[in-house]
Amino acid sequence: MLVGISTFAFFLCVAKTVVGSPNFIIFFADDVGYGDFQSFGHPTQEKGPIDVMGDEGMRFTSWYSGDSICTPSRASLLTGRLPIRIGVVGPNRVFWQWDQGGLPKSEITIAEALQQQGYATGMVGKWHLGINEKVANDGGHLPMHHGFEYVGTNYPYGQNWKCDPKKFSTAEMSEKCFKYKNSTFVQQPTDMINSTFEMVEDAKDFIMRNKNQPFFLYMPFLQAHCTLFCSPGFCGSSRRGIYGDNINEMSWAVGEVLDTVKRHSIQENTLAIFISDNGPQLEMCVDGGSSGFLKGGKGSTWEGGIRMPAFAWWPGTIPAGEVNHEVVSTVDIYATLLELAGGNADEDDVTRDSKSISGVLRNESPSPHEFLFHYCSDRLMAVRYGEYKISYVTQMRTTDFTDFCYEGVPDDDRITNLRCYDDTVVSHDPPLIFNTDEDPAEEHPLNPARHGLMLSHVNEAVRRHKATIVPTRSVLGLKNAALQPCCNYPACVCNYEHPYESQQKSEL
Amino acid sequence: MLVGISTFAFFLCVAKTVVGSPNFIIFFADDVGYGDFQSFGHPTQEKGPIDVMGDEGMRFTSWYSGDSICTPSRASLLTGRLPIRIGVVGPNRVFWQWDQGGLPKSEITIAEALQQQGYATGMVGKWHLGINEKVANDGGHLPMHHGFEYVGTNYPYGQNWKCDPKKFSTAEMSEKCFKYKNSTFVQQPTDMINSTFEMVEDAKDFIMRNKNQPFFLYMPFLQAHCTLFCSPGFCGSSRRGIYGDNINEMSWAVGEVLDTVKRHSIQENTLAIFISDNGPQLEMCVDGGSSGFLKGGKGSTWEGGIRMPAFAWWPGTIPAGEVNHEVVSTVDIYATLLELAGGNADEDDVTRDSKSISGVLRNESPSPHEFLFHYCSDRLMAVRYGEYKISYVTQMRTTDFTDFCYEGVPDDDRITNLRCYDDTVVSHDPPLIFNTDEDPAEEHPLNPARHGLMLSHVNEAVRRHKATIVPTRSVLGLKNAALQPCCNYPACVCNYEHPYESQQKSEL
Repeated sequence: MLVGISTFAFFLCVAKTVVGSPNFIIFFADDVGYGDFQSFGHPTQEKGPIDVMGDEGMRFTSWYSGDSICTPSRASLLTGRLPIRIGVVGPNRVFWQWDQGGLPKSEITIAEALQQQGYATGMVGKWHLGINEKVANDGGHLPMHHGFEYVGTNYPYGQNWKCDPKKFSTAEMSEKCFKYKNSTFVQQPTDMINSTFEMVEDAKDFIMRNKNQPFFLYMPFLQAHCTLFCSPGFCGSSRRGIYGDNINEMSWAVGEVLDTVKRHSIQENTLAIFISDNGPQLEMCVDGGSSGFLKGGKGSTWEGGIRMPAFAWWPGTIPAGEVNHEVVSTVDIYATLLELAGGNADEDDVTRDSKSISGVLRNESPSPHEFLFHYCSDRLMAVRYGEYKISYVTQMRTTDFTDFCYEGVPDDDRITNLRCYDDTVVSHDPPLIFNTDEDPAEEHPLNPARHGLMLSHVNEAVRRHKATIVPTRSVLGLKNAALQPCCNYPACVCNYEHPYESQQKSEL
Repeated sequence: MLVGISTFAFFLCVAKTVVGSPNFIIFFADDVGYGDFQSFGHPTQEKGPIDVMGDEGMRFTSWYSGDSICTPSRASLLTGRLPIRIGVVGPNRVFWQWDQGGLPKSEITIAEALQQQGYATGMVGKWHLGINEKVANDGGHLPMHHGFEYVGTNYPYGQNWKCDPKKFSTAEMSEKCFKYKNSTFVQQPTDMINSTFEMVEDAKDFIMRNKNQPFFLYMPFLQAHCTLFCSPGFCGSSRRGIYGDNINEMSWAVGEVLDTVKRHSIQENTLAIFISDNGPQLEMCVDGGSSGFLKGGKGSTWEGGIRMPAFAWWPGTIPAGEVNHEVVSTVDIYATLLELAGGNADEDDVTRDSKSISGVLRNESPSPHEFLFHYCSDRLMAVRYGEYKISYVTQMRTTDFTDFCYEGVPDDDRITNLRCYDDTVVSHDPPLIFNTDEDPAEEHPLNPARHGLMLSHVNEAVRRHKATIVPTRSVLGLKNAALQPCCNYPACVCNYEHPYESQQKSEL
């Protein structure tokens, strides 16, 4: 029995096809750090197709996420707005699987905006922006309600520490580990093996079906969130260990998708961007990622939490092999894609933080941002201004999580920098000032007394910025146990993989 | 008046010319860290010709120095032997400018060995292996006595904290800052501006003169030892600040030399290697280098002190764009170059630590080393065995030198990890074990109880290794104030730059 709403809306929305509008592919990694790729300097990570994407395209050294943790970062990517404007704030910081909240439907996603420009829109992978809304398994917050006509293999919650059959029972796993196709249950708990292959197959299929019209594909990966897993052919592929295997597997997937684009000869009309959602979960020891040169990781507004490995690829338009140091942000994807599609993010009355970086992508323009504002939930922590970073509040703990690690292996899923107001953070008055160009590791604070004018300028910008924030009800932390996703109550254990696959194949 | 012995032995040694023997160029940086180049992941360092050398050739991620500090590292490069075998050990760790000691003449340098194979040999740059031997300005330890026929612009001691005219008087500077051409005084104290240009001119000249016979050029740079300096065209060239300017200037020099090789169409017969002598002096704050992902810096046997940024270039022989993870060492240069020149390092009765890596350079062979031994002076600190690093002793201080830095700027020349026996080091029994592939940052020690067999194997290797060490008199720390280099006693201040330049030009 299939539970939920089954939809295959592959070809429903072709309202306005703009010939020549480029295709877009956004690859989005989970908890992958600034130092996790060879081209960002990792000593033992193998070079892979993502690094080649940088060779054929552009690598960014100052690309910032919209937040330091999963849900708000994804919300800001899709809306071009800081999470505080959307209400994706609160002590929980992320949606839980039984939450009744989700990305508000009042928000316009880039998928919806591109649909208005005639784009086919598709998504495969991790969602984590809400699941059920009113009753169990209504899927009211799933991607189909946010502008994605095609939704392939997807993980409404994501991959989780509790998805490891070596550590947890089937019943324990089923709580947070479930796989859908569109809004239809496929598997609970999830068997992660082959998940990357399935996502790639779906992505290839979407591209093949839409190669003759502009399309937008959003592909958020499960890698490399804990618990780590690997598929046949990738286990043991990295000298770095299983984390490296995960990077290799994800990198293979990116290569497969870009090869598909090339095979259909649409590469000169396709912009692909690879970024991570936030910094690495350093508490995972050698099974966590690396911030490389940077301080801190996931959950913090130290550079390691918010500065992302980033690659952009568009053969013939983005110059090959360049390294770009301009300050850009994941929130810019909204305005950039919409502009390239012939639209304009400024045409509605929504306050967005997104600015087009189409000129930056061509290596022709400087950063459009005078300031970037870095939040922890609804608390403004830091501002980036030119080469300066001004931190009003910082997380206490930045490195050395070895007390969580016995022989390098974690025994639980810890995030030390989840809170924004308790004693895990410290306020600075005057604020900490770092020159991020000269001191990217944030080791040597400058003397505030020597930067008074600059500080006044930034403080004034903060005042102006805060005036644009409209109080919004938090959509996080609204637990309703009855909304816990369950494929066949009360067991909540199923595997429709094979029948479903057969059904899908017969429909094609 | 010119003081010292003036020699221009450009064409004296052509005893045995082996047709087809490749030319060799060794570029050797000073205190440049694993994380100081863009291709090793530095977030703001500009891409330069050294990175391009890696694109056209090979980049190494596990290339180790022969020591963690200047003099012994250089001694091991030139002799293929660990410093303990040569007597380059002792509390001072490096030669001082008034020392009567120097690299023992009984040691065979790679320059001497290549001379026997018919190579023209040349050197420009920093020496730091001894100056005077018996009387003032006899230059008894200078490069001409160690197999270098041609010695251009050179700095017998090097570049120093006390070479900064902004901080020190002329008299103070003259003590440690002096420039020679071969063994002839040119300038005291040194004006560093244009020093890189002069070295490049000398190197180009040497290549031009010797392009029709096999040659060996040793080019140890002044960059990026403190105090930093920059030449016109490079000051302000880096968004990283003056340290980045230094990297850019050195990188330009490497590019000029390799361009000269190409211009003479001998690139397919020329092997060039770029490495650093030891890790960065982190005590220099933002004016010091970066260990990148690694722990610790100069003076320590943590990876940051001994793991080097390394590039090898030989168009047509070394595959382009490869990244090599094999464990190799600067001591291997001796056996490798000699083998490629048609010689054999095993033909004499000298105990060497050097092994040929010619197969590794071609990406055809694994590391020739089962073990690498890492010393601090005469104390064995750690052993590298496969992916494991076993540390019996470690330096206490690895990061956070901010107490030396006010607003990121150092106020003195400090090296905290100079000593090998005092309370700045700590012994480990059982030893610390790290998996350097999975944990290159040495954050998560493994459980020795689980690696008993491996430890026994390593301990036995240590025993065998120690049995090969013959007690040797230390050549360091033999101060004789009368040997202080002085161009015109007692003033020790002079500038023969221009007359000397004219003389040289008239001789050519």
